[in-house]
Formats: sequence, C-alpha cells, structure tokens
Amino acid sequence: MPGDPLNDVQHLHADAAQARPGGRTARVREAVIDATIAELGEVGYAALRIDAVAERAGVNKSTIYRRWGTKTGLVSTALIERRGDLVPPADTGSLRGDLIELLKEIRLGLHTPWIAALIRETGLRTPDNADLYELLDKFWPARFRTSGAIFVRAIERGELPAGSDPDFLLEMLSGPLYFHLLMLGRPLDDAFLEKTADFVLTAARARPPASQQSDSPASTED
Amino acid sequence: MPGDPLNDVQHLHADAAQARPGGRTARVREAVIDATIAELGEVGYAALRIDAVAERAGVNKSTIYRRWGTKTGLVSTALIERRGDLVPPADTGSLRGDLIELLKEIRLGLHTPWIAALIRETGLRTPDNADLYELLDKFWPARFRTSGAIFVRAIERGELPAGSDPDFLLEMLSGPLYFHLLMLGRPLDDAFLEKTADFVLTAARARPPASQQSDSPASTED
Repeated sequence: MPGDPLNDVQHLHADAAQARPGGRTARVREAVIDATIAELGEVGYAALRIDAVAERAGVNKSTIYRRWGTKTGLVSTALIERRGDLVPPADTGSLRGDLIELLKEIRLGLHTPWIAALIRETGLRTPDNADLYELLDKFWPARFRTSGAIFVRAIERGELPAGSDPDFLLEMLSGPLYFHLLMLGRPLDDAFLEKTADFVLTAARARPPASQQSDSPASTED
Repeated sequence: MPGDPLNDVQHLHADAAQARPGGRTARVREAVIDATIAELGEVGYAALRIDAVAERAGVNKSTIYRRWGTKTGLVSTALIERRGDLVPPADTGSLRGDLIELLKEIRLGLHTPWIAALIRETGLRTPDNADLYELLDKFWPARFRTSGAIFVRAIERGELPAGSDPDFLLEMLSGPLYFHLLMLGRPLDDAFLEKTADFVLTAARARPPASQQSDSPASTED
C-alpha cells in the first residue's frame, strides 16, 4: 500500500497493530473511523457522542472505548489517518514547488467539512475546549514534524540557511491562508497561494542573518 | 476629544451626526452600544437579539431599529467604534515600530471576549453566516484602509518599495497571530510578535522586485 499512513501512526496508536487488512478487526476499525468523520462533519467535536458513532458504525460502544479509550483518542486517530498528516509531503525538487503543494493541501483541508467543523471549535483556550486542545496538542506536533520535511530538504539542497526554523516557517505559511479564507471570507485561488509561497520564500532565504553568517562559511566569500 | 473615532465613523453611520455629546441622544447611543458589546460577549453574533439589547440598554427596540436599521448595522457600528479601527495607528517613526504596535493591538483584540466571540463565528461562507459576512465585508476594508497607513508612511520614508501592497502585507502580518493563538492555542508573547514583524519586514523590503527596479532609480546604484 503506497503511502499507507498506518505505518507511521502505529507508534501513536497501539491499536493499529491489531488491524489486519481485510480482517474483521480492520473492517470494524474502518467503519468506526468513517462514522467518526461523518459525525464530526455533522455535529463537530464538542457535541460528538461515542454512542452516536457506535450506532452509525453498527458496533457496540464498548468496542470503541476498549480500542480508542476516549473521544480524544478516537478523533485523534481519525484526524491523523484521514488527513494523511503523517505522509511525508511530495518532493517536487524545489522549495517553491514543495511550498505550493503544501499550501494546496492546506486549502483542501480547510474546505473539508469535518475539518472545517473542528477548526470552528478552536479559539482561545478555555475550560470548555480543553478536550479539543488535548487532541490538537497531539495533532499539531505530528503535523509540523511531517510538513517540516520540506524545509529540512531545502536546507540540505542549500536553498535555505542552515539555522532556519521549520515550525516558524510553517506558521508564516499557514497563517495567511486561515486568515484569508476564514476571517476575510475570501477564496484561496492559486494566485494567492503562489504569492504567499513567494513571500515566505523571500524572507526565509534571507533568514536568520546571525546563524547564516556563523553556520555557512560560504557567506564570507561575498 | 483626542482620537475620537466618531469623526471617522460619520460617513459610514449617518446617525452619528445626531449624537450630541452629553445629550439624551448620545446617552441612548452609548447605552445601546454598551449593551450590544455585552450581548456579543455573552451570546455571540448569530444568537444576538435586538430585543435583548434593547432590554439591557433600557430602550425601546423600535429606537434601535429606527437608528441602526438592522442587527448588522448595529453590530457594525459597535465593532468599528469600540475596536477603534478607524483611528489611524500611532506613528512610532519606523516601520518596525509601527508593525509591532499594530501586532500588539491585534493581540489585544484577539483577547477581548466580544471580539473573540465574533471571530469564533467566522469560517467558510455559508448561508448560515451570510449575515455576519455582510458585517465583515464592511468592517475589513475600513480596518485595512486605516492600518494600511503604516505602509503608506513607510513607502514615503523610503523604507519600502513603491509598489508594495498594504492589504497583502497586512494579511501576511495578521495571519500568523490568528493561527498561533486560535489554531495552535499558543500564547502571543512579545518575542513571537517581534519575530513575525521582522519576518514580514524582511520580505516586504525585498518586494516587489519588478516595480522596485522600475520605480526606484536608487536601486541601480548598487
């Protein structure tokens, strides 16, 4: 199975080891994840009930509790698998190409109903969304680690200074898309994605001046 | 009154012309705006009812309808006045200083309960939030026009190339704050604000290469 995220997810979700492709365990697992995605799209995270997921999947709710423990565990599995976030981003051969592919993938996610439903429930941390942030605090580091491969490759190719900070660059890259679509309510056309990629690329290549000088002997030749 | 936003709001809200400071009209107006802000903080925009605002302000709801027309008109007045968005940003003398002041103001807004409540209701445009976007489609251009003064000044001082796009720069600047606080759930400390300002500054100074070459004869001296 090319790009099967299960290999990467196993260390986060021990239950994946029990999922034999084609077996009953695997079918139940797929049905439960499908049902979770469907429920998320309809009611969001806060209102999601394990009972409803179990009924939709045609399984006993004790099966869900036994395998995923909590609502957070279940949704976290669904999010990481179905969002494909542990699949390393395609290598287009250039940083610019990689950034545009990543931005297109983010755009796709922002328009996916169940992901949009999750996003709508984020916001300032409050006791009300502590449960959701328990999930996001697991999701984002995994997501950033995977997407960050783009910048690691770029540093290896000499396209970025050695001291670049992938996590910060990912925020500079993602933030404008969220803002443009969800705050301004404007469409994310290709031109906006390319403009954003070029902007981040310009700043990223120039930074960080301090470590660029100390880490890269080549810069002293200027 | 230094920094009185009323002067700037008048062209958007004809009723402001009737508000004589200290008069009954002004007192009613203040009470209604106060009540609107309080209701927004408690129930958000979608669930806000003119009845509830009227009751809280101690006025007849027909007074509200007569002066502000619709819920959108009322909330738009409250948002633009109380957020101070039509007050030009302070001139610190440098683009970097101006950007950091602007980011601090955005941070303050993101932590203000009634603004946070409005933000939580944004998202993909759907029939359900058409009403909110009617409001935001008025708010954002006014907000961008005012904040954009920072970049106009920077171009005049020669700190930015003449072809710079203030609206795009504002998105590059704001997006990461929204993402960092509301998606990652991480605090907006001064270090993050400064890092964001420096990043945007680096890219902004380098852009746009085409118009920089054609509009700025000085660049040929390098």
